Amino acid sequence: MKHIHGGDIYAEAWKEEPLDFSANINPFGIPDSVRQAAQQAISGCLHYPDPFCRALRRAIAQRDTVPAEQIFCGNGAADVLYRLMLTLRPKKILLPAPTFAEYEEAAQLVGSEIVRISLGEELTITPAHWDAVTQDVDLVVLCNPNNPTGLLTPKWLVKKGMERCAAVGARLLVDECFHDFLCEPETSSMADQLHDNKHLILLRSFTKMYAMPGIRLGYCLSSDQDLIDKLYEAGAPWSVSVIAQACGMAAAQDVDFPQKTREYVAQQRAILKRGLEELGMYVVDGQVNYLLFRSTEMPDLQQRLHDRGILIRSCANYHGLDDTWFRVAVRNEMENFVLLHTLRQLKEESAWQR
Amino acid sequence: MKHIHGGDIYAEAWKEEPLDFSANINPFGIPDSVRQAAQQAISGCLHYPDPFCRALRRAIAQRDTVPAEQIFCGNGAADVLYRLMLTLRPKKILLPAPTFAEYEEAAQLVGSEIVRISLGEELTITPAHWDAVTQDVDLVVLCNPNNPTGLLTPKWLVKKGMERCAAVGARLLVDECFHDFLCEPETSSMADQLHDNKHLILLRSFTKMYAMPGIRLGYCLSSDQDLIDKLYEAGAPWSVSVIAQACGMAAAQDVDFPQKTREYVAQQRAILKRGLEELGMYVVDGQVNYLLFRSTEMPDLQQRLHDRGILIRSCANYHGLDDTWFRVAVRNEMENFVLLHTLRQLKEESAWQR
Repeated sequence: MKHIHGGDIYAEAWKEEPLDFSANINPFGIPDSVRQAAQQAISGCLHYPDPFCRALRRAIAQRDTVPAEQIFCGNGAADVLYRLMLTLRPKKILLPAPTFAEYEEAAQLVGSEIVRISLGEELTITPAHWDAVTQDVDLVVLCNPNNPTGLLTPKWLVKKGMERCAAVGARLLVDECFHDFLCEPETSSMADQLHDNKHLILLRSFTKMYAMPGIRLGYCLSSDQDLIDKLYEAGAPWSVSVIAQACGMAAAQDVDFPQKTREYVAQQRAILKRGLEELGMYVVDGQVNYLLFRSTEMPDLQQRLHDRGILIRSCANYHGLDDTWFRVAVRNEMENFVLLHTLRQLKEESAWQR
Repeated sequence: MKHIHGGDIYAEAWKEEPLDFSANINPFGIPDSVRQAAQQAISGCLHYPDPFCRALRRAIAQRDTVPAEQIFCGNGAADVLYRLMLTLRPKKILLPAPTFAEYEEAAQLVGSEIVRISLGEELTITPAHWDAVTQDVDLVVLCNPNNPTGLLTPKWLVKKGMERCAAVGARLLVDECFHDFLCEPETSSMADQLHDNKHLILLRSFTKMYAMPGIRLGYCLSSDQDLIDKLYEAGAPWSVSVIAQACGMAAAQDVDFPQKTREYVAQQRAILKRGLEELGMYVVDGQVNYLLFRSTEMPDLQQRLHDRGILIRSCANYHGLDDTWFRVAVRNEMENFVLLHTLRQLKEESAWQR
């Protein structure tokens, strides 16, 4: 039993709930619309959930302007990812490094060979990276914006990759789970490319924007009807709970909340970035609700913050990064202030000890 | 997209909620303890769930008197079943016929060969059935009490099967999902055999007893620590939601509710059985919260009841049964009365038409 991600607040008993910067969750918390939907759905848990999430898919279809038939919902985006691996059974997968670790975990289930494209010092995808998509590649996974960097690969460049994948017969899975946090999400999503590109798959989640990771709901989009049908068979039925379906419908209909979030996160991200830079950290110019930074002076930063009740994500277990890299969520004004203040204290103590 | 079970109330728009006898759910509905736990857990959905269900497993361990390390929790018993198949990858599986269809569905994911043991006219396991457990068998699945018959294979006979499995190197999976509804569950559970038999696996569920199929929570028990560890890798992390973990803890601590249920269900089952027999049906002597019966005179019974807002489960798609067999849940007094009353009306109409 190992946990390779952030957000494991249950591993020990805390006197007070820790300040969790290790999970990238909306700082506003669960919106009232979703909270109410959850409350009202409890009585309906007397019944099995709709195994095909029919009403939920209609609501998502309306929000994302895609046909409901092109949507598959799962028990979190992770469930959808595992089902995709079980269905596609790719022999060879291309993954950028660094990126979200769960793609590789899921790929292990079907024994795929992993080939990593190093993103280099800039931590960005460049046109040259697509040369790595050779005939023997079955699947390319692009997390966009990337986790843990927060950097966006521009749409023209994703399209280049998509064309390259088509040319060699590979699928392209674009993980847009943090996409909602971009200032202008609609201009960079690949959703409008689905219709003409059956080999393109988009992965999306409600978890981060609607601060509902405990509810479990994610989905993917594809115009390959055969693939969508097979995803139902690649795991247990009734995988999306009655409550998750109700929350997803409420979330899909709540358009004000993401808009308000985007503005607030952009503002707070700028403050947090400046604060980290003032402390001498190198901070990557992330575009969403988390920031990747490097602290060469204090490699035991995670432990020191932990001892003060603050959780951050060490990026030591990301391919292409090391134990000098850390990721923090953008939280609310007060919480970000506490983080920066604590870091300042740690820095002063550390200077004093030297 | 096909649905092979009962309980799909979402396939059409109902004017009034149908009377659902097709899903085998506790007629008392969700207990207050579980309902309150769900309500109180909503705020905690801001966090990812505990991927290892640590607190929940401690609660189950206490109730079932097994060590917490021997418990694996999943997104419903179905999720646990699929993970078992992905982990064990049995080449050859022995299944009684008739039995719950999901074993076979899950086995398809890993391409297992299915061998069926016909339960014959008595619909029961006999000692001779275990002769079918030959050297090439990797997994035997025994639903006990069986779905859809409701019949219990006595413990001495399950133990015989367990010994036979040990002799040929096969695993034995005993699905005890309806076990809680037996009048004396403790006398027939195989839980006390786990410690000495690493090849024994028990599947259990909260769904039926606590009327929470919409929440999604099931688990398995095994003293094979390696198997338990591998189940975590056989699917996505965080598969049990924050709400499901909270509900499971409340359910595990609520001992009065199952006791009250057992008494009520036994009483209502007797009434329902007598009523069906008085209508000329052949009724199997099921021991839990559903009854299997045969209606040779009215093969279109399911459709006729459906037109009157009552759902029952046709057993036409069970191996070893045909379209004259039906399964109904034991519901509350009034609901069972409505079912019997409607059946009586249908019978009279049908006699009049002849």
